[in-house]
Amino acid sequence: MQNGEERAHTRVSFDELRASLAGILAAHGFTDERAALCARLFAEASLDGVASHGLNRFPRFMEMIRLGVIDIGASPVRVRAVGGLERWDGRNGPGNLNAHASMGRAIELSRTHGVACVALSNTNHWMRGGSYGWQAAAAGVIGLCWTNTLANLPPWGGTEPRIGNNPLVIAVPRPGGPVVLDMAMSQFSFGALESYRRRGELLPVAGGYDAAGTLTRDAAAIEGSRRPLPIGYWKGSGLSILLDVVAAALSGGLATHEISTDPLRESGLSQVFIAFDPASAGGQGWTEVVDRIVADLHAADDSVRYPGERTRDTRERNLREGVPVDPEVWAAVRRLLAGGS
Amino acid sequence: MQNGEERAHTRVSFDELRASLAGILAAHGFTDERAALCARLFAEASLDGVASHGLNRFPRFMEMIRLGVIDIGASPVRVRAVGGLERWDGRNGPGNLNAHASMGRAIELSRTHGVACVALSNTNHWMRGGSYGWQAAAAGVIGLCWTNTLANLPPWGGTEPRIGNNPLVIAVPRPGGPVVLDMAMSQFSFGALESYRRRGELLPVAGGYDAAGTLTRDAAAIEGSRRPLPIGYWKGSGLSILLDVVAAALSGGLATHEISTDPLRESGLSQVFIAFDPASAGGQGWTEVVDRIVADLHAADDSVRYPGERTRDTRERNLREGVPVDPEVWAAVRRLLAGGS
Repeated sequence: MQNGEERAHTRVSFDELRASLAGILAAHGFTDERAALCARLFAEASLDGVASHGLNRFPRFMEMIRLGVIDIGASPVRVRAVGGLERWDGRNGPGNLNAHASMGRAIELSRTHGVACVALSNTNHWMRGGSYGWQAAAAGVIGLCWTNTLANLPPWGGTEPRIGNNPLVIAVPRPGGPVVLDMAMSQFSFGALESYRRRGELLPVAGGYDAAGTLTRDAAAIEGSRRPLPIGYWKGSGLSILLDVVAAALSGGLATHEISTDPLRESGLSQVFIAFDPASAGGQGWTEVVDRIVADLHAADDSVRYPGERTRDTRERNLREGVPVDPEVWAAVRRLLAGGS
Repeated sequence: MQNGEERAHTRVSFDELRASLAGILAAHGFTDERAALCARLFAEASLDGVASHGLNRFPRFMEMIRLGVIDIGASPVRVRAVGGLERWDGRNGPGNLNAHASMGRAIELSRTHGVACVALSNTNHWMRGGSYGWQAAAAGVIGLCWTNTLANLPPWGGTEPRIGNNPLVIAVPRPGGPVVLDMAMSQFSFGALESYRRRGELLPVAGGYDAAGTLTRDAAAIEGSRRPLPIGYWKGSGLSILLDVVAAALSGGLATHEISTDPLRESGLSQVFIAFDPASAGGQGWTEVVDRIVADLHAADDSVRYPGERTRDTRERNLREGVPVDPEVWAAVRRLLAGGS
């Protein structure tokens, strides 16, 4: 797999996974409604094959609540609005709830403004960014969103991490399944590097520099140098910088270099959520071109997939067979549900 | 240089370059106003160090006018509008004039709607995409625009060119000089590959696959296989697909696979121009965070540059010393000005 996730060894039903997480959140003070949505977003990430931002991330999320970094009761408040452009303050609420509310607001605004943008400051990690792309596509609109992150990549020309991997999401509705891109600006995440190292495998392509400054496929060498590679070298570095600049400027929030580099204190993020309502823009039949593009890609070669296609297949399989879970993480979550620590 | 441009051997003043191109355009039937703007956009690309989409591209532009692919008198017409989202038909007018008008309209709309988007169909190559980013920044707004192109890259998993290199531009105003990113989805353009081959140099990093399907730094091998690499492998391939999907869906125009693969017939492009007016969104002082980000990057390492910084330096130098021009191309343009072919 391109994202280098570990193979999971156990499967649980999506409903059990979601209900278990919701139970833990409710027991920690979330309202039932917020617990249900927050749990669904975590469970759907695992369902869709992104356990790194689903179940596997849940224990850290709970720890950040315990530390007071995430305020479970806080919701975004609107700071300023002009036409379809709004600025909201996330007040350090749960990142996935804040992001879901913000994309929801952008979708709502796009119904009357055609295009709308919600810029969100003071929020927390949104977990799987793709969630908000699928959300937009399910609502029949085109979604475009991104977040900044703590510094985890050196800018091109530098050797210290100073820019974020700033995931970017673009989603377009389509009757046969939306086209959804969810990509970070790093060639491989630190989670993926760890997976390759543990399996003793080389990366499929160069993923960063070793301590001597040479491009390498050795994950451990990159973890050691803290010099993972942005996609496309100078290009991904530049794109990361611009995503950070626009997010911080539009939201009035923090830029990457102003965010704590302690993963348990990574907070105060800035995010942008844009929705385009194609029905208002182009009337009927606007998804036909999307189908034509997908058909052309499929005609190219059996191994060509459109972004989001594998996710759809993974989701269907996991709904049938159960969601793969890491046995240790699942056991820890079960202990949390039983009231343990 | 990362873009692998040839060193030019002659310098002419910016004003002479601009006036010469304007004279040729006027002689071919452009109104004076349109000739002046079109010539300025070509001349500014060379001024800023992007001769490949400036003077060096001008002869092909004139040839496409001669072939009737570009309609010199056509301007975009509005097809549909809802709030800040508008769809325009470029009617195959000159690509740089169409793009300039579209970004201008998005800027105008952003003053009242906060965020605005103009989706443009049936247009021609916009030449240097960065032009429209600089245009937005000069107007004090954040600009985001992209175009699709003819198919010139294989999608990830495939071997034939079916996706475009679809340049993406993001620009943010800043008193000391805007931050402007202008990047195509290919690691190197075919123009850059040609330059490396002619100089007998290896690419600085792998730029594509050879005929045997092995990653290579040999530009000639990539030209031979027609398999240049998208930035970040599967990631840039996915981003290229989404940019095409959104441009075609929003504009109602053609997708990459529907555009002629003959470079002299590359027409009917789809483009997206988005403007955010930060003053309306966040009041005063919104550029301060941009300055903080630039200062942090400069603190990192002497060789770290923000996107647009080198362009600003190149422009200042070329305004002082003259714009570098390829002597052969310049001679051909002078013949056009004198009324030759």
